[in-house]
Amino acid sequence: MTNSYQTDDLITALATPRGRGALAVIRTSGPRCIETFATVFSRPKVLQNSEGNRVHYGWIVDDEGNTRIDEVLVTIFRAPASYTGQDSVEVSCHGGPAVVDRVLAVLRSVGFRDAAPGEFTFRAFSSGKMDLTRAEAVKEIIDARTDRARALAVSRLSGSVESVIDKVKMTVKHQATIAALALDYPEDEAEEVPFDTKVIEEAGISLRSLIATWRTGRLYRDGLRLALAGPANAGKSSLFNLFLREERSIVTEVPGTTRDWVEAWLNLDGIPLLLTDTAGLRHSTDDPIEAEGIRRTRTLIAGSDLVIAVADGSAGPEAALALETEEMAVLNDPGSDNSDTPADRLIRVWNKADLAPVAPDGWIPVSAITGEGFSELEKEIRDRAFHGGSPPQGDAPVIDSARQKDLLDRAVAAMDRFVEGSGVVSVDLLAEDLRDALDSLGELTGEVSRTDVLETLFSDFCVGK
Amino acid sequence: MTNSYQTDDLITALATPRGRGALAVIRTSGPRCIETFATVFSRPKVLQNSEGNRVHYGWIVDDEGNTRIDEVLVTIFRAPASYTGQDSVEVSCHGGPAVVDRVLAVLRSVGFRDAAPGEFTFRAFSSGKMDLTRAEAVKEIIDARTDRARALAVSRLSGSVESVIDKVKMTVKHQATIAALALDYPEDEAEEVPFDTKVIEEAGISLRSLIATWRTGRLYRDGLRLALAGPANAGKSSLFNLFLREERSIVTEVPGTTRDWVEAWLNLDGIPLLLTDTAGLRHSTDDPIEAEGIRRTRTLIAGSDLVIAVADGSAGPEAALALETEEMAVLNDPGSDNSDTPADRLIRVWNKADLAPVAPDGWIPVSAITGEGFSELEKEIRDRAFHGGSPPQGDAPVIDSARQKDLLDRAVAAMDRFVEGSGVVSVDLLAEDLRDALDSLGELTGEVSRTDVLETLFSDFCVGK
Repeated sequence: MTNSYQTDDLITALATPRGRGALAVIRTSGPRCIETFATVFSRPKVLQNSEGNRVHYGWIVDDEGNTRIDEVLVTIFRAPASYTGQDSVEVSCHGGPAVVDRVLAVLRSVGFRDAAPGEFTFRAFSSGKMDLTRAEAVKEIIDARTDRARALAVSRLSGSVESVIDKVKMTVKHQATIAALALDYPEDEAEEVPFDTKVIEEAGISLRSLIATWRTGRLYRDGLRLALAGPANAGKSSLFNLFLREERSIVTEVPGTTRDWVEAWLNLDGIPLLLTDTAGLRHSTDDPIEAEGIRRTRTLIAGSDLVIAVADGSAGPEAALALETEEMAVLNDPGSDNSDTPADRLIRVWNKADLAPVAPDGWIPVSAITGEGFSELEKEIRDRAFHGGSPPQGDAPVIDSARQKDLLDRAVAAMDRFVEGSGVVSVDLLAEDLRDALDSLGELTGEVSRTDVLETLFSDFCVGK
Repeated sequence: MTNSYQTDDLITALATPRGRGALAVIRTSGPRCIETFATVFSRPKVLQNSEGNRVHYGWIVDDEGNTRIDEVLVTIFRAPASYTGQDSVEVSCHGGPAVVDRVLAVLRSVGFRDAAPGEFTFRAFSSGKMDLTRAEAVKEIIDARTDRARALAVSRLSGSVESVIDKVKMTVKHQATIAALALDYPEDEAEEVPFDTKVIEEAGISLRSLIATWRTGRLYRDGLRLALAGPANAGKSSLFNLFLREERSIVTEVPGTTRDWVEAWLNLDGIPLLLTDTAGLRHSTDDPIEAEGIRRTRTLIAGSDLVIAVADGSAGPEAALALETEEMAVLNDPGSDNSDTPADRLIRVWNKADLAPVAPDGWIPVSAITGEGFSELEKEIRDRAFHGGSPPQGDAPVIDSARQKDLLDRAVAAMDRFVEGSGVVSVDLLAEDLRDALDSLGELTGEVSRTDVLETLFSDFCVGK
């Protein structure tokens, strides 16, 4: 590792969000952490002699004890029973920015340096407190936008992914041992090597089901971008407000002066849903401002996971047909980077169903005013979100990390090569396939890890974690 | 107290700022707090049997232990050794909003209610852990904008104000005992009652010096509003940027689209300084937008503690004279609610001193380009801020609460009445003066307290404190 993620020096960081609050927590870690920290504490001996997991009252002091900085509670953690696995001290001080700045300055003055992002968790990983799938789960728990996303990350933190991988690793290792024996005693090569391809096939299946959860994991992590499109008189704004009423709003963004659309984060059964009301589409216009609005709408539609085309049901089926053609044209736009087909992405809503109850085939009748038809629309969104599958059940492991998915893909590919090649190619090559699989799985959990990979992974964390 | 500040039930609140961070702390307090909390913890027995000031690792659980919510550290505090003086539990969980919301929901489900603002500190006060001057200091530490403001509040938290008051109280109480004795034994009334007016006079002096610190205390708490005024070509923006370069910026506000001035919080020797660059003044204009800008500039100048009139030194003394007349007219505006005289509030800067080095009398030559003269300008601002006095030294008590100042004023007035009336009016009346003084001082520290006063005081705190 580079210097920024070395583990043998003293680090400190504010661990709670910046801002005004009742409390702020500043954490520290490193060798001789407790002794060094004690030099800026009003009762140094108490800290030096403290057992781990003990809380002590006192003051952070400066100027060799002559200036009181803040009245605090200090928690002592003794290695290895700490988050990082090292000696650690946590300070709970008054939650004002001036206090936090000064306490950090005092800590720097006695040799603590500012921690890099994720550096506490990196130390936890380095000292064997957690594997990489759990370390990633720590970040994912913090970033969770909904309670369901939190639950999926908590399951990973509990080791649900790690235990699947560990089991597969054990199976692959056993076959690798058989291969090694065969290579060590070439005199036996005439006999067939007693590989068990069936257990590797089964292990491959369990990895494949894990890979299959990735799309769902990403859905809960990143959310679903859903755009409302259609002419102004179709009632898009009423439908937008109906969504706000029906689904709990996570964060409602205030529309700025520089944009001509409105958006809000909603919670659809635990799926974070970014709903955007667009300015609408028209084929051509001479007004440059309107043309700019249409350009933005096109960009929004191209970037959305799902588009709800809203038709004014009371205007009759011809309008609906024309509208569909317009939206489909945009969805077909080669500018879109979405791999789903346009048909997969389009949901047709026949609005004002209270006035015009009979919807054309393929359109969902909804009344944004009475709320009728909304639950059918919700169901359609959910079905599309899961591509016809069902949401993850209970504590079953779900991955959301692209890194993990790529390494699982590589492991499965190597295991497939082994199964197909068994009895066909040389034991040398088969042994290499098994080694490749183990390397990928080892990189996944962090047993085998490249410096640059680790740095990229941890630098994505927040400071203080 | 009303129900919202009762002390015999279970309360909980997020104690750290909302937002994403490594950690969030949720605190709880109340009778049977530990036993109740244990029902949603993965290791209930460990908590129930724990001594105070101990940290335990485990999980917050829901659904009678079947669902894991988050991996946490829990700190147990046993009454009376806790912030509130009651049994308390603090949870350090992952710092994501979804985690915090769910943990709070779980706590509500077993009987914790959301704490009102300042309710933890209110309980600390109610159980005699701190007097009101210290309770107010808790809030002031969190709100401190600069390190110096933090230091002044920390001194109050350490009891510097409380100890002055306590000493005076003791003195007044002694005289009140003498008065009570004289009233109990009216047969001795022919003799002169042996009051010691000298000690009351001395006590009055110590309270007066405390009252005198209030202006300074407010200065460090609220900061100084400083407006730059003058024509556009005088170099106001260059001077604004010079301030930003020279003083550490605390918070730089991004100018919004709805306002036509720029402002920034600066740190002048620990005084928070809100510097505003105005649009400038002109006597009359026909342009309605410009007229609106001038109206706003007038409002800003009227609301500022100090105004720097910036003249373009290179334009000659006549321009300066005209400018001064304009600014003075606004400062004299009866719309201003400032009690300082216009002359006290106006600082004259002779800008572009690198081009026109000779400034008229009463003008400070400054070059916003070279920085020359800036330290003289700083000194002038400091002198004006302290009204010719000097900044508070060391740990001497400084008050910043209007409530405290008013009560000190009342105590001093009653003590003055006692001193003046001694030997002149009846012992009854003198005893009443002493009682009035004691009541005011008792209200100041919270010994004597009215429900509505307490509620107003604590409701000004943040939730979780």
